[in-house]
Amino acid sequence: MPSEFELIDRYFSSAAAEAADVVLGLGDDCALVQPPATDELLANSTDTLVEGIHFLPDISAEDLAWRLVSASVSDLAAMGARPLWLSLAITLPDSNEAWLAAFSRGLKAALKTYSIRLIGGDTTSGSTRVLTAHVQGAVKPQQALKRSGAQVGDLVFVSGTLGDSRAGLELLTKAVEESVVAEFLTQRFLRPTARIELGLRLSPLASAAIDISDGLLADLSHILKSSGVGALVHLEQVPLSSSIKALYSREQSLAWAASGGEDFELCFTVPEYRQAEIESLAEELKLELTCIGEIRTGCELQVLFEGAPWAPSGAQGFDHFGQGESR
Amino acid sequence: MPSEFELIDRYFSSAAAEAADVVLGLGDDCALVQPPATDELLANSTDTLVEGIHFLPDISAEDLAWRLVSASVSDLAAMGARPLWLSLAITLPDSNEAWLAAFSRGLKAALKTYSIRLIGGDTTSGSTRVLTAHVQGAVKPQQALKRSGAQVGDLVFVSGTLGDSRAGLELLTKAVEESVVAEFLTQRFLRPTARIELGLRLSPLASAAIDISDGLLADLSHILKSSGVGALVHLEQVPLSSSIKALYSREQSLAWAASGGEDFELCFTVPEYRQAEIESLAEELKLELTCIGEIRTGCELQVLFEGAPWAPSGAQGFDHFGQGESR
Repeated sequence: MPSEFELIDRYFSSAAAEAADVVLGLGDDCALVQPPATDELLANSTDTLVEGIHFLPDISAEDLAWRLVSASVSDLAAMGARPLWLSLAITLPDSNEAWLAAFSRGLKAALKTYSIRLIGGDTTSGSTRVLTAHVQGAVKPQQALKRSGAQVGDLVFVSGTLGDSRAGLELLTKAVEESVVAEFLTQRFLRPTARIELGLRLSPLASAAIDISDGLLADLSHILKSSGVGALVHLEQVPLSSSIKALYSREQSLAWAASGGEDFELCFTVPEYRQAEIESLAEELKLELTCIGEIRTGCELQVLFEGAPWAPSGAQGFDHFGQGESR
Repeated sequence: MPSEFELIDRYFSSAAAEAADVVLGLGDDCALVQPPATDELLANSTDTLVEGIHFLPDISAEDLAWRLVSASVSDLAAMGARPLWLSLAITLPDSNEAWLAAFSRGLKAALKTYSIRLIGGDTTSGSTRVLTAHVQGAVKPQQALKRSGAQVGDLVFVSGTLGDSRAGLELLTKAVEESVVAEFLTQRFLRPTARIELGLRLSPLASAAIDISDGLLADLSHILKSSGVGALVHLEQVPLSSSIKALYSREQSLAWAASGGEDFELCFTVPEYRQAEIESLAEELKLELTCIGEIRTGCELQVLFEGAPWAPSGAQGFDHFGQGESR
């Protein structure tokens, strides 16, 4: 059986790209990196995926690597930060080399997609697979997309379509006939796209942002709480993909869009006078950016569906220790 | 049951100290920190502790927090870096509040001891307790204590006494009468001290350094491999505590000193002409710094005991997936 050191050499050193700002990469007590210019701040985020909680035991190693990197990098997107470095802690029950080779392939592809460099990590054994990524990025202080900047009168936007990831998970856990629409939804779950470019372009425009990991309403609530404001959301304006509409009822789709989570789209607030700039940006990035409501006084999140109050059934976001839905 | 967000608020926000370089702490998509001056590099390291592998299931939460922070910060010490920020990923089977409160106490104490600031993390549920810390520090490029700098003729030093941690683990797993010497050894296992001050003081003096986590011989081998050199070690010169000598045979003590691991002392190499400076430093820091051998040509690590080749029985370091000893 190869040793921990041989495994690191074989599957992770090759994923660590050479980069001018990585002075010393894997293989010493610490990695050494050149920090960005002092007019930029470092954005730091940590994400853990646990087998049986965040991913199904039979997920492919490539998909798992992709999900881990995307979920982590998505927090940089939500801050408007440019990705720099990723550190990876990985706990595995055994050193299955075919699995590691596939994981390494997925890791390299994801790192390349997001232009983020693997600089270190730790590999350990344990009965359950647990993966933690720590990511760092750079952002100018005045352009950081904090949750706390939403102002009364701002418009609430979301990127892309919502609910797809939750629908994709549903399809993966049921025996469903293969189809193009099913494939689209399962890929949205397995291979989410972090909206890095959108975050960078929004950073001078938006007043607040968050990535949709817990669910639209739960994540928007975080913005409201941090900003000390309320909001009105028109649920029928929440964008749904043609795939989710083809397979599920409108009611089910909107419930997942509202609270399914893990779409890794961005929810952001923008001063009303910037609406035209957001529309231009959507065209330029070829990405739907949809206004779904507005920021109001108070602290309440009011959700209307075609003008009437919408009563979510089990619509809270994912919460690991609380009453949230368990998957 | 409190939610994940409430738990973070209750037990981790309070551990996150205010600091001038932490612009935005816990509670947003990312933490924002002010990087050090551009004449310093950022040192990054990641360490994972898995229940049943790295710690006994009945370890106290305070001790566990201390071990995690010390083991992580020890890598900064080995690089000669000044601690800056720590991110914490913690996977727990349940949200036992008494446990979390004790963990938070240990965490705060350790963070304060090492002057490192908690800036973020992730809390998740999972059947096994898994804790990952990502630490960052600052070091001037020319003073970074890489593993690759050892030169033929350099002297090999270790700090403190070795083998204590492994002996302490032995005592914890056996029913042993309480005594002052037993207490000293178990504390060396449960509450190791990362040698931050030593690392900082060595950074302009030493040619290479590593912290002893896998075991003296395994860790020294990493220096040799990285530096492309060999070494001769006189095992009888390896410093042993009076406690380990009181409870165990000299042979057993030296075997643990050679390969027990997790002492978190530093092993470092120094040009011979600097020997007097190291002796002064030892006096100043009130910390044993003992010459145990020298760097030689070749690539072999030769270990002598009173002049004769020493044949270690099971003396390799800890290796999570390899043939190493399992605990």
